[in-house]
Formats: sequence, C-alpha cells, structure tokens
Amino acid sequence: MSTQTPVLQSLIANRWVGTEAARSLHSAINGRAVASTHADEIDFAESLAFARTQALPSLLKFDFQQRAACLKALATYLMEHKESLYAMSAHTGGTRSDNWIDIEGGIGTLFAYASIGRRELPSSNVLHEGPAIPLSKEGQFIGSHVLVPKRGVAVHINAFNFPMWGMLEKFAPSFLAGMPCIVKPATATSFVAEACVRLIHASGLLPAGALQLIIGSSGDLLDRLEETDVVTFTGSADTAAMLRVNANLVRRSIPFNAEADSLNCAILAPDVEAGDPEFDLFVKEVAKEMTAKAGQKCTAIRRAIVPARHIDAVASSLRERLAKIKVGDPAVEGVRMGALASKAQQADVAERLAALSAGNEIIFGERDGFAPIGEGVSEGCFFAPTLLLCRDGFANDAVHNLEAFGPVSTLMPYEELDQALSLAAKGRGSLVASVVTKTPAIAAQTVYFAGAFHGRILVLDRDSAKESTGHGSPMPQLKHGGPGRAGGGEELGGSRAIKHYLQRCAVQGSPTMLTAITGEYQRGGKVQEHAVHPFRKHFEEIQIGDSLLTHRRTVSEADIVNFGGVSGDYFYMHFDAIAAKDTQFGQRIAHGYFVLSAAAGLFVSPAPGPVLANYGLDTLRFVNPVAIGDTIQARLTCKRRIDRGNRPDQPPQGVVAWDVQVMNQRGEMVASYDILTLVAKLA
Amino acid sequence: MSTQTPVLQSLIANRWVGTEAARSLHSAINGRAVASTHADEIDFAESLAFARTQALPSLLKFDFQQRAACLKALATYLMEHKESLYAMSAHTGGTRSDNWIDIEGGIGTLFAYASIGRRELPSSNVLHEGPAIPLSKEGQFIGSHVLVPKRGVAVHINAFNFPMWGMLEKFAPSFLAGMPCIVKPATATSFVAEACVRLIHASGLLPAGALQLIIGSSGDLLDRLEETDVVTFTGSADTAAMLRVNANLVRRSIPFNAEADSLNCAILAPDVEAGDPEFDLFVKEVAKEMTAKAGQKCTAIRRAIVPARHIDAVASSLRERLAKIKVGDPAVEGVRMGALASKAQQADVAERLAALSAGNEIIFGERDGFAPIGEGVSEGCFFAPTLLLCRDGFANDAVHNLEAFGPVSTLMPYEELDQALSLAAKGRGSLVASVVTKTPAIAAQTVYFAGAFHGRILVLDRDSAKESTGHGSPMPQLKHGGPGRAGGGEELGGSRAIKHYLQRCAVQGSPTMLTAITGEYQRGGKVQEHAVHPFRKHFEEIQIGDSLLTHRRTVSEADIVNFGGVSGDYFYMHFDAIAAKDTQFGQRIAHGYFVLSAAAGLFVSPAPGPVLANYGLDTLRFVNPVAIGDTIQARLTCKRRIDRGNRPDQPPQGVVAWDVQVMNQRGEMVASYDILTLVAKLA
Repeated sequence: MSTQTPVLQSLIANRWVGTEAARSLHSAINGRAVASTHADEIDFAESLAFARTQALPSLLKFDFQQRAACLKALATYLMEHKESLYAMSAHTGGTRSDNWIDIEGGIGTLFAYASIGRRELPSSNVLHEGPAIPLSKEGQFIGSHVLVPKRGVAVHINAFNFPMWGMLEKFAPSFLAGMPCIVKPATATSFVAEACVRLIHASGLLPAGALQLIIGSSGDLLDRLEETDVVTFTGSADTAAMLRVNANLVRRSIPFNAEADSLNCAILAPDVEAGDPEFDLFVKEVAKEMTAKAGQKCTAIRRAIVPARHIDAVASSLRERLAKIKVGDPAVEGVRMGALASKAQQADVAERLAALSAGNEIIFGERDGFAPIGEGVSEGCFFAPTLLLCRDGFANDAVHNLEAFGPVSTLMPYEELDQALSLAAKGRGSLVASVVTKTPAIAAQTVYFAGAFHGRILVLDRDSAKESTGHGSPMPQLKHGGPGRAGGGEELGGSRAIKHYLQRCAVQGSPTMLTAITGEYQRGGKVQEHAVHPFRKHFEEIQIGDSLLTHRRTVSEADIVNFGGVSGDYFYMHFDAIAAKDTQFGQRIAHGYFVLSAAAGLFVSPAPGPVLANYGLDTLRFVNPVAIGDTIQARLTCKRRIDRGNRPDQPPQGVVAWDVQVMNQRGEMVASYDILTLVAKLA
Repeated sequence: MSTQTPVLQSLIANRWVGTEAARSLHSAINGRAVASTHADEIDFAESLAFARTQALPSLLKFDFQQRAACLKALATYLMEHKESLYAMSAHTGGTRSDNWIDIEGGIGTLFAYASIGRRELPSSNVLHEGPAIPLSKEGQFIGSHVLVPKRGVAVHINAFNFPMWGMLEKFAPSFLAGMPCIVKPATATSFVAEACVRLIHASGLLPAGALQLIIGSSGDLLDRLEETDVVTFTGSADTAAMLRVNANLVRRSIPFNAEADSLNCAILAPDVEAGDPEFDLFVKEVAKEMTAKAGQKCTAIRRAIVPARHIDAVASSLRERLAKIKVGDPAVEGVRMGALASKAQQADVAERLAALSAGNEIIFGERDGFAPIGEGVSEGCFFAPTLLLCRDGFANDAVHNLEAFGPVSTLMPYEELDQALSLAAKGRGSLVASVVTKTPAIAAQTVYFAGAFHGRILVLDRDSAKESTGHGSPMPQLKHGGPGRAGGGEELGGSRAIKHYLQRCAVQGSPTMLTAITGEYQRGGKVQEHAVHPFRKHFEEIQIGDSLLTHRRTVSEADIVNFGGVSGDYFYMHFDAIAAKDTQFGQRIAHGYFVLSAAAGLFVSPAPGPVLANYGLDTLRFVNPVAIGDTIQARLTCKRRIDRGNRPDQPPQGVVAWDVQVMNQRGEMVASYDILTLVAKLA
C-alpha cells in the first residue's frame, strides 16, 4: 500500500474520522493508487445520535423556502469549485463529458431542487396537499392531507458510477424535506464523494450534521434505524433484494427505495424508413449510450430493438459509428471513451459478455486486438465497445436478464410493433425505454403498453432531437426509477421526491382547526374583520383569515349591455332574449366575466398601496347564474401567504392568495376562486 | 362437523370451487356452526391465468369513466340486497351498527370511488399527471408523467374484523385502475365475504374474473406473482413482516402495501377544562372506540392520554359510561356491544390483557362476574370492556407495544403537551390519533409533531363534534394507513388509492408526441385549424388540438375608461397616470380582467350552438401588461375532452377544456389560462 496517497475520511458527527489506511483505491486509467479507505471504526450510534439531536433541530429551524435558498447557495459554491472535482474524477476512468454528468449534473440537480422548492413549497414546514374535502353537510367537519417532517434520518447508499450526482440527487430532496442525510458512497469511487463532501463542509453553508459521509462499510447502521428513518439504495438488484429484507427495516416498516440496474431498451418504430432523420437518431443514441461513461450507466441501452427489415442497415451504421470512437486515457486528445471504474468491473463485464455471447453473435468488438490509447493503460480497466446480435429475442432469455454493465449492447429484430413491445417487456421492468418514431399514434400506443414496464419513456423524433437530453439522462423534474427488476423505486420527479422524505398525514376537524393546521384558510373557518382594508396591509401585517365583506351591487340590464360593448362578447345567453328562454336558465344572464370584474370593483382599494399586482387567478367556477336584478356581494379572505425571502432585483414582497366568494341576494354562491397577489413588505 | 351448514366456495376463474367441507366456522354469539371452508384445492395457476388473459383485457376495454359507472351500478345493486348481508354478518358477533360499518361502509366506499372516478379521471385509460414541464429553451422537448394500467393482478389479503368493507375498499380503487382482483378474506369471517362476492357475481355487473375469491389458504399464490402485480395486506404486524420478505415479492419488487394493527391514541389537550364540551367529547369517543365492534378495529383507541389533573375525573366518567353498556347477543333489545369474532381472539385478548395488567391497574372490567345477555352466549366469544390505568407511561413499555385487540384501553396521565406527544410517539407509528382541544394553535402544534407518527389525526372540538365521523372511521377521501408499526402503507385517500394500482411513467418528447401520449394538448404541439369555428362543433366532432387564431383588437384608452365604468374597478394602475408612472410598468395599463373579457369577445361564437356553458377557468396568469395602444389576439385550442357518459337528468354533453393564450403585437404572451366548457353531444 502506498504511503503517498491520502487516507479518505468519513464525516461523522461533524468531525472527520480516519487516519489509518485500509483498502487502496486505484486509478481506472493506469492502476496507480489514488487514495485509501480508513481502517478506523465508525461509531454509527454517535452518527445517528448527532443527526437526531443536533442536525434535525437545526434543519427544522429553517422552513422549506429557507432550505431551498440554502441549496441554491451550496450549488453556487460547488460550481465555483468544480475544477477540483474534475481533477479528482479523472481517476474514475470517465471522460470530461462523463464527469460533467456526474459533477455539473449533480450541481444542476441542486439548482433544480432549489428552484422547485422555491416555486412549489410554502414558507413553513407543513406542506398542505389540498384542497380540503367536505366530509359533512353543514361544513363544520372537513378533511385534508398535510406532509410534515418525518423527524428521522435519510440513509443513502449509492452506486460507484456517479459518486457525486448520485449523492446530490438524493441529498437535495431529503435536505429540502428537513432530513439529515448519512451517505455511503460505493467504495471504488468514494474519493470523488469525499472530495465533494469536503467542499460542502468547508462551505459552512449547511447546519452541522446535515450531511454525514461514510467511507467504507456501513456496518450495523441499518440495524440501528428507527421508524422515522428512510433508506435509499442504488446499485445491483441482488444487493437491493438483500438489503430490503433487513430484519430491522422490515420490523419497523422503514421505507426502502431501490433503484437497480436493469436492461433498458430502445425501439426503432416500424414507421421509420432508412432515409428518415429518425433512423440516424436511433443509431446515434444507441452508440452514445453504449460508450458514454463506458456504458456504466444504470440507464444505458442494453437492448436495441429494430424492425427485421432494417437490422442489417442498423448493424452496419452502428459498427461504423463505434469504429470511430477512440478508447483510452481521456487526457489524450481525441479520446471519446474512457475506462470502467475498477478491475472488478472489468472482470465482471467480461464474464457476463461471455455468457451473453453464448447463442448470440458478436458483431462488433475486438477482444484480442483491443488497444486503448495512453500511458500505462495496460494497468487500467478498459473494455472494448461490444455489439451483439440476437437473431430471436423470444428464444433467448439471457439478453433480457443478464446485464453486462459496460459498453455492451445487443441488437434484436422484430416484425410488428406488438412484438417489439413484448420484447421490451421481457426485461421485466427497467428504468427507461426509448422509442424512435415519427408517428404520434405509435408513441401513444407504446407508452400505453410499455409504461407499465419502464420508469421513463423517451420519444425521439426530428422535432425533439435538437433539444433532447437523451435516453440516459434522468432529469430532476421527472421520475427516475422503474418497476420490477429496476427496483420499484421512485427518485426525483420534481416535488414528488421531496414528498418521499416527508410523512403524509390525513387531518380531520373543523375548518378553523384545519386553517391552523394547514396554514391555509379553509372556508367555514373563523375569519377576522378589521377596520383596515386587507389590501392596505403589508405582507407582514396580513394574517391568514383576514377578511373583507364588500358592499353590494345590483346587476342591471344596462350592465350586461355595457359589458357586451366593452368586451365584444355578444353571446346569446346574454343578449338574445328569445334563445335565452330555451336555456336551463330561462332568461338572459350576466356574463361570468362581468361578475368577476364587478367583484374586483367591489373589493379593489384604488389608491397606491402595498398590493403590487394581481398576477393570476385559480380554480374559478361559475356556480350559479346571475340574472338581471340580482344583487351580488363578495367576500375576500386571506388564504395563503408565502415568504420567499427578499431578492436583490426586486422590492421586498411576498405572495398572498385570497379566497373569493361572490354571493347573490339569497346567499347562494355565484362564483368562487382564488386570486394571487404580490404584496410589499414593510422591510 | 355439522352436515347442515353450507360449504363456502371460492370463486376461481369465474367458477365456484369447493364441495367438500374442511374447517367449520362458528357463530361468535353462541358457538353454533355457520359454515365451513372447502377442502378442494384451488388451482392458483388457473386463477392467475384467467385474471391475466380473460379479466384484464375485459377490464381494459372500458375506460376509467366506464369502470366508475360500473362501480356505481354495483354499489346500487348491493345496497338493494344489503339485508341478506346483515343476516349473515350477525354471526360475526357484531351489533347492527357494527355491521353497518362493514356493510354500508363498504358499499358507501364503492359509491365514493365511483364518484371520485367520475370527477377526477379521464375518459381513457391514461391518467395525465401534469402539467407538462419544459425541458428545453426552444420548447420542442418537454416532459410529463402519465399513469397507465399496470397490466397485472391485485392480490388483497384481508383481516377478519371487516370482511366486507375490507374487501370493497381495496377492490374499488384497483377495479377503477383496471386490475383484476384476487381476494383472500380472513377465514374466521369469510362467510360474509363469500356472501358479498356471491351477490356481486349474481349481479353480472363485472367482467368475468374481475373479482376472484379464495376461501381458506392462499397457498402458493404469492410465489406465482409477477412484476406487474400488487399485494395488499391488512392484519397483524407480525404477519405483515413475514409476507413482506417473501422471496418472490422481493426478487420482483412487487409492491406490498401493509396496513397493520397499531396502538392508536387519543389525547385530551391541556387547554380543556372539566366543564368544557370537549371534556365530554373525549370521554364519549374513548368509550365508543372501546366498545364499537367490541374494540376489534385496527383504528380503536388503545391509549387515552389525559392531563394528570383530569385523570381521576376522566376515569370516573369513563367507568360510568362503560357501566351502562349492555354486552351480549345483539339480537336482544338494548344490547350495545357484541362478541369478539372467534374463540381464538377471545383467548388472545385475555392473554394480552394479562400481560398488560402486570404493572398497570384495571380500573374497569368485571372479569369474574361478567355475564353477557342472551341465549347460548356462554358458548360465544364475549369479552368484558376493560379499562386500565398506567400511572407512568414513560416507565411502562407494554402499553405502547402490546395490543389487546378487543374492548381494552389504557388511560395514562401527562403534565405538558410535549409529554403527551412523546407518549403518543412511543407507539412507534399508528393508524390514527385524536386530539380533543378547543385551541387551533394546539391542534397545529400536535399535527406538526404527531403527523410523523400517525397516518391520520382527528381534531375534535365543539364545532366539529356534531358532524364528526369519529376517530375510528377511515374515510374514502382520506388516507388510511400509518408509518412504523402500522405497516407504512397507504390505502384510500381519494384518487391516491387509484394511483397505487397504476404505474407512473415519465415521458419525454416533442409537444406533438406528448399531446398524443397524454391525451391533452401541449403547447408547441401541432394544431389543426378548420374552417368551422371550434365552438360550432359537437363534443364528438372536437379533436384535441383543434384550434382557432382569432382576429385582433387594439386596446385603447377608451377601453380602460369604459371597463372601469362597467366594473367599478378604478385601481390606480389603470386610472392614475401619476402613480402609474412609478410602477414597474411606467404607465397606465389595461385591467387584467379586461384582457380576459376582450379575449372572450374575440373567440366567442354568439349564436346558439353546441357550447352549453363556460363553467370555469383554471390557472390564469397575467404574464405581461397590456398598455394603451397594444394589439391583442387570442389562440384557443382544444386541450382536453372528458366523456362522462350520458345522464338521464341532462342533455347528452361532455366536458371540453380549452387552452387560451393571449398575445400582443410583439408575439409576447400577455395572458394564459384554460377555460372549461360543457359541449352538447350529437347523441
């Protein structure tokens, strides 16, 4: 063991642990020692206790909005320090663009979750998943759902291929949700995760213990978890199955989210002809997915399903494209594919390829003459891109069940679309499938069937190709995870991911109680009426339930006529007394938008004041018609307040949503909606 | 074994199976034989094959709306035949009102899901979980999520206490989602489930194989399931833990949803005084939950947590109330509590009570003198309501961990609210907690903390009490299931439950492709412009993407003046040139509602036609201001169509949602929204 290489350290209870070297980790390019794990034991009881008693209270001192702002600051900090991460990542065997996915893809995910948090979460720690539902006739017993902090710890066990992205894409939503994280990266590439956590720790942007790092084994950590905790796992299906049945996790019903490698596929649809741009898009995508990250992506295309009549053309185009890809040390100019992550992976891929090639033909891949470019690469973990051809995908089980986690893919022919979908389904669940087609109906049919078997489906055509992020890239906004072999888990997917780290609780009670619980005014709840018009209060002064009952207005025939003149809307229900007689209302009625406009006239406060803008309106329903002679009146009540903090580019302001009910002289509701305003802050 | 009693039969592959008697099932009231299970073996391979090849295609021939209508018809049919179910249910030991929960609660859940399906689901088999998200700058690559049929089978393993409700509350959402169900009721009360399935089968309302029934053991059924299937379990935490680690379920990541018994609690909040109505509400609720269904509810209150200063008063009020409750054969006039479901339960409750009473005081419950009312009741399974007092809930673990699944509850005192919440959390996860308080802030604090440990929280006060459905009743609209000991599952909760039986798939592609996939027009996608105005087409004639680009209108100063006059809205941004200069717009701008109204004037088709009503508007955003002299133009595009079938009480019609974009002369969007219309059908 080299004494030159640093000993990686675990970050436990806000202290860096580990001085004595244990296992040596090597460069995937040339086999040189890079770093070593530490031999010092980790006290997992201490780690958990610190998370529960120190980190958790600190995290919950902030609200969702404040944690989102914190994520953004962290992302900005990491982006400024990214070059040190690229330097460290070079040892993993990836090219700069492979490492871009890991490093900037990871940081981008932090930015994305900062933005999702800012846009979609309240400035509190209770997320109302409404609307509330009436559970009784008189309206004094209603129900709804809130998502509250779980008050536990998130343990993230990650894969070797994306040490940084894998960590950050799970950290971002758990941190937003208010859970301290304990991350255990795969050992082989843990030097990248450690470098990233060192930067995060040095930034001082997170509360102590919000992120702990385990270098090496996770020991008895899972046996020590409690009901409030969560475990996520990314890696092989076998390890997922083993961890999932951990007795402590099962006994305590601790959520276990698995994202496992699977045999993803791409389908060239039957409508595509050899001259179509879609034909080339397919070939390009398959070649890219085989070679990006040397095929070590849990989303890589393992099965390329092609119309029988095109199989030779696709095979030869792919061969041509693959032949041009230089493999070797990415530091060498022109190299487009790097090494596998470790010797163990190299051996594993070779073994699986041998099993796959029994019964299938290798149509590209120089196993003997393979010579990667660069110095010392013979000690590296390179593997030649290898394309197989399976002539009958229905007769061969291995191609649907055995994954060589490297630059290896199998072509297989089909006759009809149904067959292609059946072949795809033989993978028994995968993370992603692509379909390349120019026909919307084929895309729809594919998703309707294949959606049951794949976590994500990319539809590629000439329109989307220029902007497509590709088959292999999970997006923060879209769910990552698939059924069956892929582990049955869900990660990412916008705010869905945050909800996985919160606890959903159904709540029932009076509207007044649910107003307090949800932080959102519920109709039927108590309101406060003050001498001051609610629109004359600043953001800080407005309370949920502040309410105004307006003066009244009698709607006359002249109003309808005038409104028609101004709007140009001469719909027969408003203007044709003969036709209006035959409607369900039996007479001319006022325009719905007149009611809306007149209500605004009733509650507007005309002089300049704290209300900066009415920027929108939600769920407007015209509940009853307003006839000539009816008298309307509006109630305006503060429903929701969101403080997103102050931004340097705008005056201090907050979002206030107002519940509006417009009633007629019989007390019947005629219109119901929410209006959205920006309200200035005092400071 | 009596030869008089019927042999219960399984319904497998649409045939009734079973002729030879096996285990005899007895009346809980008097021990007389009621029925027996069958000895005939079930062919589970046949059952699954029938579900997959016969029932599934039949179910998917219908869309969500049609299955919702089918559920409603089924609920109506069962309601008409309910008395035969009451007759059979009498043998379970329950009172008429206990059996009301099981029978009419079950049928009510069918009605509720029929209505949820009708209101919230599309008239197709693809549920779009939007809105779609832009994933690129030019807008030709977007993403969204759809939920599609899983194309598998739902296996429901149910508990003995609610043989009918337990079956129907799981059947309703799985049927709506398009999954054939195989139900395995607990054997002890399977005669009720069988009677219900016989009615369902006789109704002829469901496709063959949509519901199969297993009387007796589920054999190797779980070992035969595939990746597309789902298992739900209701019962003890031990059995849940055992089934959850079934090797086949784990290997294939088959979702396993558990709802386990747990130690639910009720908290009397520290603000309640002895004279308050809330004090009596608490006592009443605890007594009711102890005795309803003889305490055999997975939601029953096992722990009553009370301010120390009130503990004696609560104890004596509870004793008084319990003393009045007559126990015996519910057929006898005045009897308010029946029997446990079986001798096995009787023995189990006695054993657990013995363990609980070590270290705790029994303050109500006549174990020696207990004499239930009725004939033959000595052979029945009665158990005396029993109240324990635990003087220190922090020192006694059994009261938080050991559940006597009968009319048994434990009182325990606390000093401060924090302590009450800690005591509640010592149950390590439960289905439901109640808090009885008159203070909204206490309710909010309770939910914020206790929401992490309880699946549902009921807040009871004088306002909600009259209409409250009670601590023990799961509602179709609200989530049922809790973390930790309660199994970590989720059932019910409105459309959430349906989604558990669908597969979520992320989709990416061009807006045109996503329009076809989601069945909803996506902006940027191709539209069709026809000579005929879209508002002049009947429902059947309208296609997603049918679009109208209107003529234009220049907005003048006079429009603002006139609109102010009609609406009464003289807000300074529209009318005060001096103040308007200081806004972000720097000048007077048109009213947002004027833009909305003028847009309606642009796309309205004034003469009577197929559009029957514009009943609402969603997600209106004023994106840019409209200044004097700006020229606006609207694009109206058919976004969504929902066919809810025809109803006898209204002319044939469907719902059509239209995407509206209002643009200015520079092509900038000024307003964006959806309008909702009812459109007449041709037939």
